[in-house]
Amino acid sequence: MITEKLAQYSTQFGELMKIDAFAFLEHVAAHPDDYKKGKVVLVTAATPLKASRGEGKTTTTIALIDALRRRGIDAAAVLRQPSMGITAAGSKGGASGGGKSTLSHPEIADWGLNGEMSRIADAQNLLAAFCEKAVDDGILSTVLIPRVSESPSRSLRSVQVDGGKLAERFVLTPASEMMQIVTLSRSLEEIRERVGNMIAGLSANGANGADGADAAATAKPVQVKDFVDVERIIRVLGNAVQQAYMESGEGAPVYIHCGPFGNVSLGIPGLTAVDLACALHDVVVVEAGYGADAGGQKWLDIASREYGAQWPAAAVVVTRATTWRDDPQLQWRYPFAVNRLEKLGIASFPMINLWEGEDDEIPQLRSTAAELGFRDPIAGNLFRDGGAGLVDQLDGFVAALGEADAQTRPESKRGVDFLEKVRWVIEKAYGVPAERVLAKDGFEDILAQEKARAAALGIAFDDLAVLPVKSPATMTDNDALPEQERTVTLKKVEVHAGAGVVHINLTTSLTTPMPKIV
Amino acid sequence: MITEKLAQYSTQFGELMKIDAFAFLEHVAAHPDDYKKGKVVLVTAATPLKASRGEGKTTTTIALIDALRRRGIDAAAVLRQPSMGITAAGSKGGASGGGKSTLSHPEIADWGLNGEMSRIADAQNLLAAFCEKAVDDGILSTVLIPRVSESPSRSLRSVQVDGGKLAERFVLTPASEMMQIVTLSRSLEEIRERVGNMIAGLSANGANGADGADAAATAKPVQVKDFVDVERIIRVLGNAVQQAYMESGEGAPVYIHCGPFGNVSLGIPGLTAVDLACALHDVVVVEAGYGADAGGQKWLDIASREYGAQWPAAAVVVTRATTWRDDPQLQWRYPFAVNRLEKLGIASFPMINLWEGEDDEIPQLRSTAAELGFRDPIAGNLFRDGGAGLVDQLDGFVAALGEADAQTRPESKRGVDFLEKVRWVIEKAYGVPAERVLAKDGFEDILAQEKARAAALGIAFDDLAVLPVKSPATMTDNDALPEQERTVTLKKVEVHAGAGVVHINLTTSLTTPMPKIV
Repeated sequence: MITEKLAQYSTQFGELMKIDAFAFLEHVAAHPDDYKKGKVVLVTAATPLKASRGEGKTTTTIALIDALRRRGIDAAAVLRQPSMGITAAGSKGGASGGGKSTLSHPEIADWGLNGEMSRIADAQNLLAAFCEKAVDDGILSTVLIPRVSESPSRSLRSVQVDGGKLAERFVLTPASEMMQIVTLSRSLEEIRERVGNMIAGLSANGANGADGADAAATAKPVQVKDFVDVERIIRVLGNAVQQAYMESGEGAPVYIHCGPFGNVSLGIPGLTAVDLACALHDVVVVEAGYGADAGGQKWLDIASREYGAQWPAAAVVVTRATTWRDDPQLQWRYPFAVNRLEKLGIASFPMINLWEGEDDEIPQLRSTAAELGFRDPIAGNLFRDGGAGLVDQLDGFVAALGEADAQTRPESKRGVDFLEKVRWVIEKAYGVPAERVLAKDGFEDILAQEKARAAALGIAFDDLAVLPVKSPATMTDNDALPEQERTVTLKKVEVHAGAGVVHINLTTSLTTPMPKIV
Repeated sequence: MITEKLAQYSTQFGELMKIDAFAFLEHVAAHPDDYKKGKVVLVTAATPLKASRGEGKTTTTIALIDALRRRGIDAAAVLRQPSMGITAAGSKGGASGGGKSTLSHPEIADWGLNGEMSRIADAQNLLAAFCEKAVDDGILSTVLIPRVSESPSRSLRSVQVDGGKLAERFVLTPASEMMQIVTLSRSLEEIRERVGNMIAGLSANGANGADGADAAATAKPVQVKDFVDVERIIRVLGNAVQQAYMESGEGAPVYIHCGPFGNVSLGIPGLTAVDLACALHDVVVVEAGYGADAGGQKWLDIASREYGAQWPAAAVVVTRATTWRDDPQLQWRYPFAVNRLEKLGIASFPMINLWEGEDDEIPQLRSTAAELGFRDPIAGNLFRDGGAGLVDQLDGFVAALGEADAQTRPESKRGVDFLEKVRWVIEKAYGVPAERVLAKDGFEDILAQEKARAAALGIAFDDLAVLPVKSPATMTDNDALPEQERTVTLKKVEVHAGAGVVHINLTTSLTTPMPKIV
């Protein structure tokens, strides 16, 4: 059941309950001693073999809070809003757990009925329409805000509109800058400011009144606030800024908000959802993915390092037994993910998510984990057994959590040279040193162009956070190569001035991530 | 306040209340003697001078029910869901009345926060994505289900996707077949069946296994049910099938559901919203537009004639004083609209919606109305005075309503030859006789092709209802010509097998109706 205090900030709609976290957190800030300061546990995963194959992060997250609550610990989960497009059209099914480790209302979460994805899509598409009008009005020459779609449609990767005269881009709604802004913002004022700061396009007029080719060469970036009444966008967003409240089958609290697709965007739930859970519970399990190299990296290096989100007190790194085993050339990736988190001082527990018929593999898995110097793995068929199957395996985890310092604050990289930050992420998160970071032809030009655009707007480029965009299934140009031969190629850069991040496209990334329906 | 019985079928979400009319109407059907059999009043308008210019139908509708209730009559209104794209991006503002004649929560209705438009867009776009996959899978060669957008973006009128290889269409969400299906259906089963019957595209294989040019020539239409799990679409629709409940400023009940854009689609509210209002109230004021020639015509000839909706007991035809007066060449249109409804046996009352500073025009307007043989007009500044300004003017209206036979049932045109029905609409609704109905080059070919597609699916073409698609601002090819010179040109035909209608494009219609942002 939702706490009495939180109920005052909540509205119920049939089976859907939504929370006004902005208002609740104002109240918490005014009465800090009345609230908890819960510790964050990061649930992330191995790099999946395919994007369409889930390792079981949501299932683990739900089983884990049920197990912790069976041990008398006040635990809650914070999940990301699933993508309706993937649920409805993909083979992976929903993203709300499964079997005994599932949500009270998976049908609401999975099918987009929380409503936030539609509102965010409407808001961003409305911005695109305003930009198009600005082209007609002679304000813009080029539109830089892509349209969005939640239906995965590979053909939308390349679109010409207006009878073929104008190239436009579609991105998936979860990968839009609007979604990033709602995920990262802690007040409506912050959303308003960030939407206004989005780069809408390039000016129709060049510097000093130049026209023609000169105008194109000197066209300046134009921000949304320069020609759009941002209040209209805020109105269309409506209650997309609110969190959904659900429960596990055993009644554990689960907050859901924003953020799927850690490969091409953030892959983390909304920061205010985590803030509010930390005010109400002692342990807050936060899901981030696809893997430790995607949403996991982004929780650490974007949310915690640059946006004040809590550094994890512990981590659980989920893998299917088969993911770890199926491809010998990729076996290095799971230990790499676990060790990378341990090296950051985060107590990191392997979690083997077993499928039917795999129970007898546990001794072998434990022995492999011991050889690798892992902490003792947590293992179980969570679909079949739920949290009950984990209760007795959590002594080490609970002890590590108790010892962790919840006040750890990582050093911000704000102001560090952009390429230095990029190389640092690639080395720490993917294991490739600076000398094997390559650049695609033309990369330097794109980087210079984006830097110039930021400078024209008075934005300090090196103050923006680095947001890698890559395939969910690879960390390097070819993960199957021996360690010493692995490279990462820098391909493209794109400033999201509203969200405060710079996208950097790596390896086999797609700039317009429309997955194929499978 | 909502009635106690209806409250059992309602859910409240903050300021938004939604009603499960399907469930409520099942209950009504089982207990017919416990419910009312309200009379329908049609509120429609003159043909507007421009689409972006409202005559004041919603304002009139709200003032009218407030005035009737002040006279002790249990009146309610049924409105169409406004289009967020028009509210946010247009000059016209919202579509929820104004001043003293407005809704309790215009901010919810105007900004798309009822949620149905987004859900309908997601459902139709998901269908388009499934069709695209069917092209990849070798099931379809051509996709016939357009994508939809609620943001008005003129450039989306012509789109190539997949790097220019595939032409696709975008239509406005309110003009989509999915919206038509939700508007016209009276149960979830009916929606399920209608979505399954939508024509998805043309088969990849021609008749008898032909390929290449032969395949293209003999490609058969393929329906959604042939390759899509329709349940996924139903899940995405979620509660888009439910009606929003609001109130006027004076507390009169207002039901809102579906249906804007009477020029290119239906332009009428959802039929179940009207059914439920008739079960609960004595007088149910139904808004349909833009004008009597658009949504008004569609209420009469599609909803009432073919889908069992109530024939109006009376009508109110709204015009601004200036619309009636501004363009002498178009002055014929307002009397034509009023007289057309009278000829159908519907007591039709002129309603002059006055703006600030126009009060002293009333005597002149009344005198003109008398010369034209109109019933005595209802006139007032509804924005300023609300329903209070109408109370004393409704004696004739209330008397006519009392005399009207609510059981009138118009003759169905089902089975009548398609072109005969088209000519009949053009003569009755736009005043142009059969001999001045022209056809654009190629029209016969398109008609033959659509007839063949229907035949291939076993659909009796002449059983489908005719749905004219045209500019909101014109009834004929040139309304400014003298009556004897006016023509109407038939341009295109498109079967909506799910909704059960055939679109016929007339005069200056656009097939992809993306209004320009103004």
